Amino acid sequence: MKGTEIATLGEFGLIDRLTGDIQLTQPTSLKGVGDDAAVLDHAGKQILVTTDLLLEGIHFDLVYVPLKHLGYKAAVVNFSDVYAMNGNPQQITVSLGISKRFTVEDLEDFYSGLKLACEIYGVDIVGGDTTSSLTGFTISITCIGSADKDKVVYRNGAKDTDLLYVSGDLGASYMGLQLLEREKSVFEGSSEVQPDFTGKEYLLERQLKPEARKDIVAQLAENGIVPTAMIDISDGLSSDLLHICKQSNVGCQLFEERLPIDYQTAMMAETFNMNVTTVALNGGEDYELLFTVPLTLHEKMSTVSGIHLIGHITKPEQGCYLVTRDGQEMQLRAQGWNHLE
Amino acid sequence: MKGTEIATLGEFGLIDRLTGDIQLTQPTSLKGVGDDAAVLDHAGKQILVTTDLLLEGIHFDLVYVPLKHLGYKAAVVNFSDVYAMNGNPQQITVSLGISKRFTVEDLEDFYSGLKLACEIYGVDIVGGDTTSSLTGFTISITCIGSADKDKVVYRNGAKDTDLLYVSGDLGASYMGLQLLEREKSVFEGSSEVQPDFTGKEYLLERQLKPEARKDIVAQLAENGIVPTAMIDISDGLSSDLLHICKQSNVGCQLFEERLPIDYQTAMMAETFNMNVTTVALNGGEDYELLFTVPLTLHEKMSTVSGIHLIGHITKPEQGCYLVTRDGQEMQLRAQGWNHLE
Repeated sequence: MKGTEIATLGEFGLIDRLTGDIQLTQPTSLKGVGDDAAVLDHAGKQILVTTDLLLEGIHFDLVYVPLKHLGYKAAVVNFSDVYAMNGNPQQITVSLGISKRFTVEDLEDFYSGLKLACEIYGVDIVGGDTTSSLTGFTISITCIGSADKDKVVYRNGAKDTDLLYVSGDLGASYMGLQLLEREKSVFEGSSEVQPDFTGKEYLLERQLKPEARKDIVAQLAENGIVPTAMIDISDGLSSDLLHICKQSNVGCQLFEERLPIDYQTAMMAETFNMNVTTVALNGGEDYELLFTVPLTLHEKMSTVSGIHLIGHITKPEQGCYLVTRDGQEMQLRAQGWNHLE
Repeated sequence: MKGTEIATLGEFGLIDRLTGDIQLTQPTSLKGVGDDAAVLDHAGKQILVTTDLLLEGIHFDLVYVPLKHLGYKAAVVNFSDVYAMNGNPQQITVSLGISKRFTVEDLEDFYSGLKLACEIYGVDIVGGDTTSSLTGFTISITCIGSADKDKVVYRNGAKDTDLLYVSGDLGASYMGLQLLEREKSVFEGSSEVQPDFTGKEYLLERQLKPEARKDIVAQLAENGIVPTAMIDISDGLSSDLLHICKQSNVGCQLFEERLPIDYQTAMMAETFNMNVTTVALNGGEDYELLFTVPLTLHEKMSTVSGIHLIGHITKPEQGCYLVTRDGQEMQLRAQGWNHLE
């Protein structure tokens, strides 16, 4: 191979290399590459645009992912990016590359999941592109949302002493994936074996049918709270928190004892002999909101349900650390999904 | 295979089946599936959104398409969809699925083409998604444009007696593709042979580095002309004209002798023993604008350069016909690209 291998840069290094020199020239372009969504200004209203490309074999395995669930999830992960900007998703476009083994009914299943997600979140499907694929199923969804002016929340606004919150709980989606992978290998070994998912329904639901936190964005608005920085957790708490810290030029302290972890997640981690904190930090695909608010809002935050205070922002020279249960400080590293390594 | 084969429906039949029941629920959604772009209303300004999915082996062959040209073309075909709505493209998002054999320099070549197109057309790259692909190179681009209220032109506004215009000339891109395919097979037979493209540069340029007709949209605006219907020619004149006729519920007469065909296209068709009218009707990838204006604007249209009057709109019961040089009427059929058959 002549030239530089992509793996030497990693996903974010590659994006920097390719897009680092891009200048925005249109007066309507407020924010380009580098956040959960782009921000456009049209007649004073801010338009949010985000896009995701999902490829069979990389992002999903049709052996254990039903097409209806895949459609639901493909839509929801895009909505999540718009909520992470403190906006509301309104439209999506859906482009599909369809392999020959698919039937019309397969695509109807996929679309039924898409449509269900759109119905629940109040989003319209407004366009797309459909083509055949020589290889696997390819899904590209772009979501357009809107936000009131000055309400858009970026990744770069966190300040020293801000409080750090996360919604829901962490690591369940990753444990659901491990469970599905295990059952797949058991199944491939012997067709007699039936997968046993009893008592693990929550893990499967988090992996196969995640939800975006529209409710949190709504509660923040009702209480007049605008976070200083926000991101949704797709790559993993650790990786996504480091995005906020890097872009805001701050450090952070995260407390292990405060990480919200569901009982099923903890049980499953034990079964798999995994450290549950590592799962919570690096699992990814939680689609929870991670955000910072000024310390002065501490009391007001108690009126918002479904969130957890997990740490606080520090000065940049203090670095980014996890404070363990026994009081040790461990440097946070991005060990989330990296589809390019 | 259980279920319905997709080929039995074709691309447009499949899209109807999957999206036919979609209702728009958001007040900002003005137009959904079924035109060159979706139309959204934000604070009185109309936002256009269009998206294209390009897959290696289906839409492009990296044996003879340089990555820089591919980047340029991938951007331009999206701009063309926005111009076809009488709007101006302003932003794009770019999602890439990258196969392992690609180097960083390959992607820089691709991006250099993208950036060149964006610079020339005044468009910003504002986001995207980058992932690895187990198979070929995958490109998904979404373009956002804007238009003044009441200036957006749909496919469904053509009226009986309207005049039918097309910009530029037709069939050259298709002949360029044939030429590249021939040279590829010659090349694969013997590495001694050098492709000879002398005197065929225009055909190659039309295939490898097409332009979108920003200039036509600008001229129409300068002259205060708003077409009644417009589409860009991607599938082929015949197929795209039938979209206008179907959606406008009208018929048409197209005159063979008026079809604009470049000298190189005609020469090449003769070399390949192809009927040049068939090439002009069905070749596709011309990215010219096809549009209708009221008969009363006939004189005013003479101030617009680079366009050709090729026919007129009729009542729906008169059907859609090509009038040949010898005065015969042949029914128009959609024989353009159909990536799902």
